[in-house]
Amino acid sequence: MRMVSRWLLGRPLRDDEAERARVGVLGGLAALAPDALSSVAYGPQALLIPLAAVSAAAQWNVLPLTAVLILLLATLTLSYRQVIARYPEGGGAYVIGRDTLGAGVGLVAGAALLVDYTLTVAVSVTAGVQALGAVWPAAAAHTVLVSILLVVLLTWINLRGIRESSRVLAPITFLFVLLVLVTAGVALAVPVPAPAPLPAPAGAAVPTLVLLRAFSSGASALTGVEALSNGVPVFAEVAWKRARTAMALLGISLGLMLAGVAAASWRDHVQPVSSLPLLQQLAERAFGRGALYDLLSVVTLAILAVAANTSFTGFPNLTHVMAEDRWLPRMFLPKGDRLVYRNGILALSLLAALLIWLFHGNPQALIPLYAIGVYVSFTVTQLSLARVAWQAGRRAEAALPALGAVLTATVAVVSAIAKFLAGAWIVLVAMPLLLWMFVRIRRHYQAVADQLRLAVPPAPLPPPAPVTVLLPVAGINRMTLEALTYARSLSPTVIALHVALNGERAEVVRQRWATLNLPEDIRLMVLPSPYRSVLGPIVRYIDHYRARHPDTRLLVLIPELVPRRLWQHALHNQTGLLLQAVLAFRKDLVVASVPFPLSGE
Amino acid sequence: MRMVSRWLLGRPLRDDEAERARVGVLGGLAALAPDALSSVAYGPQALLIPLAAVSAAAQWNVLPLTAVLILLLATLTLSYRQVIARYPEGGGAYVIGRDTLGAGVGLVAGAALLVDYTLTVAVSVTAGVQALGAVWPAAAAHTVLVSILLVVLLTWINLRGIRESSRVLAPITFLFVLLVLVTAGVALAVPVPAPAPLPAPAGAAVPTLVLLRAFSSGASALTGVEALSNGVPVFAEVAWKRARTAMALLGISLGLMLAGVAAASWRDHVQPVSSLPLLQQLAERAFGRGALYDLLSVVTLAILAVAANTSFTGFPNLTHVMAEDRWLPRMFLPKGDRLVYRNGILALSLLAALLIWLFHGNPQALIPLYAIGVYVSFTVTQLSLARVAWQAGRRAEAALPALGAVLTATVAVVSAIAKFLAGAWIVLVAMPLLLWMFVRIRRHYQAVADQLRLAVPPAPLPPPAPVTVLLPVAGINRMTLEALTYARSLSPTVIALHVALNGERAEVVRQRWATLNLPEDIRLMVLPSPYRSVLGPIVRYIDHYRARHPDTRLLVLIPELVPRRLWQHALHNQTGLLLQAVLAFRKDLVVASVPFPLSGE
Repeated sequence: MRMVSRWLLGRPLRDDEAERARVGVLGGLAALAPDALSSVAYGPQALLIPLAAVSAAAQWNVLPLTAVLILLLATLTLSYRQVIARYPEGGGAYVIGRDTLGAGVGLVAGAALLVDYTLTVAVSVTAGVQALGAVWPAAAAHTVLVSILLVVLLTWINLRGIRESSRVLAPITFLFVLLVLVTAGVALAVPVPAPAPLPAPAGAAVPTLVLLRAFSSGASALTGVEALSNGVPVFAEVAWKRARTAMALLGISLGLMLAGVAAASWRDHVQPVSSLPLLQQLAERAFGRGALYDLLSVVTLAILAVAANTSFTGFPNLTHVMAEDRWLPRMFLPKGDRLVYRNGILALSLLAALLIWLFHGNPQALIPLYAIGVYVSFTVTQLSLARVAWQAGRRAEAALPALGAVLTATVAVVSAIAKFLAGAWIVLVAMPLLLWMFVRIRRHYQAVADQLRLAVPPAPLPPPAPVTVLLPVAGINRMTLEALTYARSLSPTVIALHVALNGERAEVVRQRWATLNLPEDIRLMVLPSPYRSVLGPIVRYIDHYRARHPDTRLLVLIPELVPRRLWQHALHNQTGLLLQAVLAFRKDLVVASVPFPLSGE
Repeated sequence: MRMVSRWLLGRPLRDDEAERARVGVLGGLAALAPDALSSVAYGPQALLIPLAAVSAAAQWNVLPLTAVLILLLATLTLSYRQVIARYPEGGGAYVIGRDTLGAGVGLVAGAALLVDYTLTVAVSVTAGVQALGAVWPAAAAHTVLVSILLVVLLTWINLRGIRESSRVLAPITFLFVLLVLVTAGVALAVPVPAPAPLPAPAGAAVPTLVLLRAFSSGASALTGVEALSNGVPVFAEVAWKRARTAMALLGISLGLMLAGVAAASWRDHVQPVSSLPLLQQLAERAFGRGALYDLLSVVTLAILAVAANTSFTGFPNLTHVMAEDRWLPRMFLPKGDRLVYRNGILALSLLAALLIWLFHGNPQALIPLYAIGVYVSFTVTQLSLARVAWQAGRRAEAALPALGAVLTATVAVVSAIAKFLAGAWIVLVAMPLLLWMFVRIRRHYQAVADQLRLAVPPAPLPPPAPVTVLLPVAGINRMTLEALTYARSLSPTVIALHVALNGERAEVVRQRWATLNLPEDIRLMVLPSPYRSVLGPIVRYIDHYRARHPDTRLLVLIPELVPRRLWQHALHNQTGLLLQAVLAFRKDLVVASVPFPLSGE
């Protein structure tokens, strides 16, 4: 067991082995931007789908909606440059909201972030597998299986505590940005295929609800920009200055990619299909199915996997902090021997795998659930920032985050309404449930702490109380005598209990017991059992004894044969195990089995 | 839990409530013959299938093969009339073989019978569901599901210990015989449809292997005749005489049915199909799809269910007797509170459900596995009978069972060869495996008994040995103190173990411990944990202590919070449970948790 764990997860690490490599602007961008940049792989397609469902002419709306998205991105970028300056230690929406606006707002952000991290994994992984499917059809045929295997791989990497090195990540990140821009550029440069693009929304009235739905789905293209602000300590000194520069670069490259993809997909009026992601469709038009097409698909998978990996740091850190605040179970607290929060990692991968399975590995089906959590956490962070600036009297500084908060809150509300039936309702149900769960957990831990608290100074320890050891025996043999010796070492008062399933056997037990010549305090009770139950008479005897000796502590010792081979366990101890199971729920006694190891066959 | 069990299974029964209703010849026939009589529902069809696969002309061979079957049935009937006279207490092939021909032969019969009982349930239930499918197409569409539900129903009936009353069974049994004979008679009486039956095997050479395969499949029509000889005590006095009369009636009715069905299916040269059983095909020809057709289908299902039910008495009785002889695990010994052998019933239904699932609920696919076990047990019984008669000097009396044994052994061998690839190999693999398992189990129990045996008179009980109680503590609080008080009541030597995951916390624990002012024998050990493992340092400390104090008994007490609600268990005790799991495999110490019940939320 331990060897398997070593081999899978590596040797344990000491506390002081948590080293930290500091990086420059580009290195930090490579490590922290993939979450945001990779959103280009599914966001524009999500924007396009509702429009294309109306009519080809309606696709024209891609252009103005993307322009609004880019404006929103600009606001967010500027706003998060402030976040970086004000919270250079990171912290995320939960900590920032909690410390600035109070526990309640912090909890809302916490619930939103838990949902967000889980969906980031599910959406990124499935979108990555779709991109892979463009070059390797087997992956497209088994999306769910391949996606879940990818989640397992990410889980393993994170349980081992492997840190992404910027030397590996930089080529993926920059190559992705470059390839997307080249793809969009070439697609725009090649001659227009027939039929010509529809230049204007001539006679194509698109219902407002569809526009809102398209916009709020497209808003998933901005998810992940906050990751950079959480990772400021990664940068070399002066960290927050470098991080601000990286944030600006992130905003510019993401904006360029969105504009390019939107323009190209409108010009060629690409029909979104579920079998081939939008980026791959554009690449096919630009380069044909050649080496560049393959490269783009593989790099898309890689950057999406890195994006999913971001959640594997964020989610366990968040559950750890929330468990410290006692809103989540204590099991999320300990750092394992590879310096990672194992239970948080496992919880995230289980939840993400469940989502992937429930939504048949289709990223576009998950998108309606996605934006709400992200935009709620954007809103909380920016509101906190605005409030701090306002209270400090820096009112001009408060304007930008306040505007940003209004915008992102609007997106969250629009998402909830426009995509309610398409899946947003799940998040609107899950978030209050999470809040209710947080409160229940904290209230329980509080009640337990009250009950465990000692007086100061503590009362003296009460003197030892009498203990009666009860020893169920099926017969009188060497195992029974070993257990009896053990029982006698713990207390002078021992009662052996024999359930008389068979009159003759009970008589033999009685006679053998007599030959043992034991002191008076060690006695045998033969319990009648008219209904052939073994457990019933023992439980009744315990109740009876407990009623007559309310101040005596009870210890039930169950003799247990321990055979050498695994299969032989099926041949023994069934009754003992049942008795242990029945008594395990009693709060008024202690139960233990006394092992009697067997040798030979 | 207990209430659910009461409601499902009924109140417990006292030993003396095992009453026995004695019945007359017809009542006994109704109770014990369904196993044999119901074989008409699948046997003739099994005989027909291999022939029909060759050619329509080959079906002529149904007539001579059925004639041979009826001769075999006559021999078996006469032979089992002797069995009834010699073994009026029943016993079955395992007990008879063991007592007459030795343990080895008994075991072979035991293995054969276990296989046979399981297949009786699987074949009867699936054939019954096929018959039901003739009137209720939904059953035909979900054979596996409906069959397994029927097994669950039979399991429930038998766990409740409901005895079949002959008042319910008599109409089913006699109506089935009557309906089958009327169906065959009417089918023979209606005019011959075109084309005319092929009167002779003109030019239709059938390979010998096909004939053997057809015959050995058809031999499944005789399964179950031994059930009557096992149930002799059911009859009123003079039981064995009434049973012999019933046996004769059974042989005659089964023979008539076989002859009638064979003749009718040959005359109308019915093509066997998997969707509609042969009996139902004949009924359709005889009456059309009217009330009689429906009645026959339902009665067929009913008698097959009763036949399957026979195994639910036979299998648990056999596993009980074999467990008494220590060839099977002890868990098959106890009689539950409804006076039935619960584990035997459950084992049978699990095995039968597994077979039904593996063979897609198709009785004809199971037939190749079926005959071997039955005919091996026929052979053992008759050999035993012949040997007893021969040794007692009644040599003429030995002739009939000896002839029968030769015939049934031949059928078993022919079955094994002719249907080897069709499934018989499974039985030929399973039976030696069962024998090997019996021997391994017995050898293990023997070795255990040797190790548990006491000297006579037993050596005096050794004096109490010193016990050290180890108490892992995460902090010093009321729960810890309660556990400490308990520990102190069991031994003067108590060592509290605190794993220092956090230096500050460890210091707090040390300081609080000092304020408790405990005697010197009760001390605190703070264990360092550079790799943040809780379990590792504790296990290492135990090893270390064990090495230094080899003669001290160790008791590990783990304090355990017991919350009031089930979900709250997820918030506590993870480490304690892990520690208990890790230590459960150690044979050199006793582990127990000390409950600390919580109140309130």
